[in-house]
Amino acid sequence: MQAEKSFHMTPEEFRRYGHAVIDWIADYHSHIESFPVLSRVKPGEIRASLPAGPPRHGEPFEALLRDVEKLILPGVTHWQSPNFFAYFPCNASGPGILGDLLSSGLGVQGMLWSTSPACTELETVVLDWLVPMLGLPNKFLSSSTGGGVIQDTASSASLCALLAARERATNYMSNVRGCDGRLVAYASTQTHSSLQKAAMISGIGVSNLRLIEVDETFAMRPDGLARQVEADKRAGLLPCFVCATVGTTSSNAMDPIADIARVCREHNLWLHVDAAMSGTAALCPESRHFQNGVEHADSYCFNPHKWMFTNFDCDCFWVADRKVLIRTLSILPEYLRNKATESGAVIDYRDWHIQLGRRFRSLKLWLVIRYYGVEGLQHHIREHVRLAQQFADWIRNDDRFELAAPAPLNLVCFRHKAGDEANQTIMDRLNRSGDLFLTHTRLNDKLTLRLCVGQTNTQERHVQAAWRRIQEEASKASK
Amino acid sequence: MQAEKSFHMTPEEFRRYGHAVIDWIADYHSHIESFPVLSRVKPGEIRASLPAGPPRHGEPFEALLRDVEKLILPGVTHWQSPNFFAYFPCNASGPGILGDLLSSGLGVQGMLWSTSPACTELETVVLDWLVPMLGLPNKFLSSSTGGGVIQDTASSASLCALLAARERATNYMSNVRGCDGRLVAYASTQTHSSLQKAAMISGIGVSNLRLIEVDETFAMRPDGLARQVEADKRAGLLPCFVCATVGTTSSNAMDPIADIARVCREHNLWLHVDAAMSGTAALCPESRHFQNGVEHADSYCFNPHKWMFTNFDCDCFWVADRKVLIRTLSILPEYLRNKATESGAVIDYRDWHIQLGRRFRSLKLWLVIRYYGVEGLQHHIREHVRLAQQFADWIRNDDRFELAAPAPLNLVCFRHKAGDEANQTIMDRLNRSGDLFLTHTRLNDKLTLRLCVGQTNTQERHVQAAWRRIQEEASKASK
Repeated sequence: MQAEKSFHMTPEEFRRYGHAVIDWIADYHSHIESFPVLSRVKPGEIRASLPAGPPRHGEPFEALLRDVEKLILPGVTHWQSPNFFAYFPCNASGPGILGDLLSSGLGVQGMLWSTSPACTELETVVLDWLVPMLGLPNKFLSSSTGGGVIQDTASSASLCALLAARERATNYMSNVRGCDGRLVAYASTQTHSSLQKAAMISGIGVSNLRLIEVDETFAMRPDGLARQVEADKRAGLLPCFVCATVGTTSSNAMDPIADIARVCREHNLWLHVDAAMSGTAALCPESRHFQNGVEHADSYCFNPHKWMFTNFDCDCFWVADRKVLIRTLSILPEYLRNKATESGAVIDYRDWHIQLGRRFRSLKLWLVIRYYGVEGLQHHIREHVRLAQQFADWIRNDDRFELAAPAPLNLVCFRHKAGDEANQTIMDRLNRSGDLFLTHTRLNDKLTLRLCVGQTNTQERHVQAAWRRIQEEASKASK
Repeated sequence: MQAEKSFHMTPEEFRRYGHAVIDWIADYHSHIESFPVLSRVKPGEIRASLPAGPPRHGEPFEALLRDVEKLILPGVTHWQSPNFFAYFPCNASGPGILGDLLSSGLGVQGMLWSTSPACTELETVVLDWLVPMLGLPNKFLSSSTGGGVIQDTASSASLCALLAARERATNYMSNVRGCDGRLVAYASTQTHSSLQKAAMISGIGVSNLRLIEVDETFAMRPDGLARQVEADKRAGLLPCFVCATVGTTSSNAMDPIADIARVCREHNLWLHVDAAMSGTAALCPESRHFQNGVEHADSYCFNPHKWMFTNFDCDCFWVADRKVLIRTLSILPEYLRNKATESGAVIDYRDWHIQLGRRFRSLKLWLVIRYYGVEGLQHHIREHVRLAQQFADWIRNDDRFELAAPAPLNLVCFRHKAGDEANQTIMDRLNRSGDLFLTHTRLNDKLTLRLCVGQTNTQERHVQAAWRRIQEEASKASK
């Protein structure tokens, strides 16, 4: 029999090129501090360097890898640099990358238990592990009434929570008959923008998302929430959902969950807790008090892909009552029917999120937890918090600067006292220098710089160097 | 200075373990035909083999890789086996896996242009390449009024299309004020279940999703669509969206896009074309006639992660008018503001989908297209179509069997004439044998077997072997 013509990469070619890619990544991480953290390319520059059309004939893999180095790398902002202090981190790590690689290599679809049982069962096991690891309530365990699932991002998790709340409040008739315009959801003025997006997507509408006022720490005011819920009820509306945040994106504010939960219980509102970045801190018992009251939450999410060294995408989302979520999102066409599903003995995760298809994402999370151990994770989280607190002290002790918000964990919001223009100049110069990358927010209508210590490899020397550079630019700016 | 304590994997350790993982994957793919395609584990078996809690101390990477082999692999259904003929394929390939690995290693966030310019610009370039590659209209090019974006799945793409349609029809007020219950969307009885899910999620409601009747080829009837739209308008409702499918999941039916588009133009409805699997066939000019009329579509999606050798997740989604999509999904909080965005000179893809965060997914798609070249992709797609057509001929020429639907491309729907029970028995025995994996649907209320030829490595010998095994089981079943 004649061998069939093939353009595929053989396993032996894969082995050779795979080693080359691994080496390339190892080298990249070894030299990552030599790159300017924020890419310096101009709009259109990368695009202009690429051919306008696809190649007719295949090219050797070596050429592709050379182009990644030559054409792509200059357009990369180095999120994995230890000098990355911007936004929130989006961490990779060795075990995270290799877990993701195994997932790509296995290439399974986990939409149903039966389409790859290990993909579903490992996810259930790891999500159950995390419940005590984070001090979350037992009702989130799969052995209880709830359970956890890996979503792509907190945006999707919050949307699912809002949808489940919408359905519970309408006796599961919104998804049949459509939204009726009376449903109301609540967040704070500081809640992540994804909640507005969720209100838009779900048909509830932005004007029915109330943004409750915050106190001087930028935390939601429970009394303000209670007043607004009561006013909406009097107006004949149907309050259904509250999002409380453990560590807002803007300033790491901590909404008082226990007090918010009391309002939710009184009015039968779904309480979702978004702990996207700061949830990771709960690995350390001394940082769990920020989530006091979480035992009253109907749902909770945090992103190991932010601060817990697990490659994007990986958001962990738990619900207290899985039946509500499944009833909200379940559809079973004939071509997906199977005996395992009908037995009721298995979880089919495609009923727990927006998408049907799903990747074997628990592998990377499992490898991260096992490689570090609880002890290793705690060590690095504690170290990041310590370094951020040290930085906050430096700010407190420098007359030119002020803290713009409490710094409860690893995000420090600060500003030069000389005003918006000086702060903008300091930030722009720092970021243009390539030495570090930080971003801004506005608090009390003042431009505020944010320094988040959370990148996998950030050590004391990187924070010290950042502070030196900030001081240098401050000296120039105030001249 | 004392070295800081660290639990991280060093770049040199990463190099060593990375080579081991690459070798493991190369070996896995070399031996993949030795595994039963469908996993044989029972519900709870994998879970029971794993510890109930996380380890306190970290474990050596070698132990983790051993556990993947010993504990996880038995619970894997081998989607990358050439004997996988179930559902639709979900293909990996060497360049796809390695592109995904590079993405994990770089670990960038592409939510905004400025957070990693290469992530945005490479995506725009590759999505522009695909427009002529697939014979799609020029209005989908980024240089025109439209543009493309990589979404996770067709479920999310269809949801975004529906949301954009909802907004256009309501003058962009649904996302502000919420759905009013008058919006109506249209699909066929054979359209993928994700459309029902999208109707639920968007607040339009399942009862406002009309499932139009199909003809004897299971394609949507444009006259039926027109009648329903007119009836809904007479009833004071607001028709806004039609989903036409190029290759339904159940039977690969081809909705007549040109005729459906005429109805859409007459009533100003958003036309979305879902070509999740079969869109890949349009790489070959001789298969493009199935999408005649696509030049009238407002949006279009197909999944390179199904048939085009690009690892999950990778759905390509184009719109003819990007302004509508962006206006539907855009939100700009202060902490994401930046000069590049405000200049208007760049694309910020987070405004093109549900999530905020996004991975560097275009890398794998770029590497696949360049490694295979257009010629290589066409070769393998043509070969799959040829093998499926050969299989369809075998069915036609065997008196015991009948085709249950036209087999326009690479999916063959067939059944044994002895009825549902015989077909169920044949399928169960084949799948239990581990020799191959196929799944079923129901057509004209009869149990129907589906054989989809599309897995990356499926060659003539695999389809021949599948046919031999089907004949063997048929002989037993009809005794």
